[in-house]
Amino acid sequence: MYDTVIIGMGPAGMTAAVYAARKKMNTMLVGKEYGGQVAWTSEVENYMGFQMISGPGLMDKFEEQVKHYPVERKQSEVIRVEKESDHFVVRCKDGEEYRCRTVIYSAGKYPRRLNVPGEKKFTGQGVSYCAVCDGPFFEGKSVAVIGGGNSALEAVIDMLKIAVHVYVVSIEDWSADPVLAERALQAPNITVLKGYQTLSINGERNVRSITIRSLASGAEKELAVEGVFVEIGTMPSNAPVKELVQINKLGEIEVDCSCNTNVPGFFAAGDVTNIPEKQVIVAAGEGAKAAIGAYRHLLTSTP
Amino acid sequence: MYDTVIIGMGPAGMTAAVYAARKKMNTMLVGKEYGGQVAWTSEVENYMGFQMISGPGLMDKFEEQVKHYPVERKQSEVIRVEKESDHFVVRCKDGEEYRCRTVIYSAGKYPRRLNVPGEKKFTGQGVSYCAVCDGPFFEGKSVAVIGGGNSALEAVIDMLKIAVHVYVVSIEDWSADPVLAERALQAPNITVLKGYQTLSINGERNVRSITIRSLASGAEKELAVEGVFVEIGTMPSNAPVKELVQINKLGEIEVDCSCNTNVPGFFAAGDVTNIPEKQVIVAAGEGAKAAIGAYRHLLTSTP
Repeated sequence: MYDTVIIGMGPAGMTAAVYAARKKMNTMLVGKEYGGQVAWTSEVENYMGFQMISGPGLMDKFEEQVKHYPVERKQSEVIRVEKESDHFVVRCKDGEEYRCRTVIYSAGKYPRRLNVPGEKKFTGQGVSYCAVCDGPFFEGKSVAVIGGGNSALEAVIDMLKIAVHVYVVSIEDWSADPVLAERALQAPNITVLKGYQTLSINGERNVRSITIRSLASGAEKELAVEGVFVEIGTMPSNAPVKELVQINKLGEIEVDCSCNTNVPGFFAAGDVTNIPEKQVIVAAGEGAKAAIGAYRHLLTSTP
Repeated sequence: MYDTVIIGMGPAGMTAAVYAARKKMNTMLVGKEYGGQVAWTSEVENYMGFQMISGPGLMDKFEEQVKHYPVERKQSEVIRVEKESDHFVVRCKDGEEYRCRTVIYSAGKYPRRLNVPGEKKFTGQGVSYCAVCDGPFFEGKSVAVIGGGNSALEAVIDMLKIAVHVYVVSIEDWSADPVLAERALQAPNITVLKGYQTLSINGERNVRSITIRSLASGAEKELAVEGVFVEIGTMPSNAPVKELVQINKLGEIEVDCSCNTNVPGFFAAGDVTNIPEKQVIVAAGEGAKAAIGAYRHLLTSTP
């Protein structure tokens, strides 16, 4: 019986592990891979303490710090979390299961992929899923943003200040808030391409262009860009717990400001939650809160 | 007219500055000194990315990162923030004033001091105001915790697992939650000294002992300890804004999970707020949220 099982090895989960271990909690950290989304972010400039560090480099440092403490670690996919009387059972794909008095769920989100040729190859070489993180690397270049929702338009507004030219490619009309749309359309360096499907991302070592097709005419077009921001939504990794805890319409786990869910003893932190800012430093802070919350829960719920 | 003036140069304020600047906001950072409470923390082991770093060392890294961006910086004490029609006015002790469309208030807290001989001299050399931060450095040593509230008893519980012996010295009866008190009293290595005033902290380079006096008998006692945790409460630095925004009974600024206060355009982050976890990584995360919030506010409140 663990004091806590932390599910997810991104910034939130690893921070929670360090905090839990420092509280001398008997801790298990389980997840598919160290680093979560950050492990495939090219460069991080907005994690305080490091002017610039690669995503994987930063996550290596987090991992090192976890290893410094007596935290049991297991790379495995969690398929289900269940509540049984006064504890939880965490079931893994490999058949293992762990019993624990608290759970810290920080399995993160994954961006929806376009699923087009070149997307995977150029991830980190021009293809990005985070304008806040990677935008500044495209100063003076042309970029495309794929998508028409709020996160896409926020990416567009960011990039209009940084890039020489921004193409905004969406299949449907924009669903973003009008204020964002209006703001974007004031810029002289925007080209809006609604009703276009993205067919491929092209280049050699780095992105050189994208190919798009008009849904109306079927005509294809090549846009010369060095950056492609895919902003067609993210998917919270909620599958193992969606029948256990309250989730919102976006599939995010609902937490209060201290990472409590509606199930006592079950905490959630980071991008899998309804906290709107999906940032490494924010997720790390939330991971610390969740671990402190789990510690307080153990103090008050047991003799 | 600044897009934002950030008040306070601790982890929350410096993180907010980096995030605001990356959003190309016209940003001013003003405060008494870089680093806030962290600048007088001996060692930090729970800021992710650094296994161990001195408090001042970590804050130097934050400061460096701020300097990398076009953020105006001013070391000055803010004495008052006022709202004037559609903007704020930040007034400093030196007579300067700054106008801005948003404020990010992150002026922090300061621990109440005992105000006894030796306290200042041994700060960072045995005297600590944060058991979560500094506790592990006293493994196998004897320590005293001064105070009887929840934060004192949380420090006691932490230290009972780490230290050889823990003296708990308080003037009055404990005000901590019974569950914490009970938990502490189960340990074999605790000595409770209620009704005792702390007179001095003694040593040469490091703490060797404290002198306490019984309020009942007037008798003095010397306790051989190498660590002293002063946990007699903290004071939010709310003076410049306490007539502007809603504060709670503890004097903390009330924020929601996204660092909004009750005054639109006025954000608060870090230890000065009602967020219960007073940790560098948490404050930094909250600073990022506040800056993103201020940016969104500017997007939606202006043409």
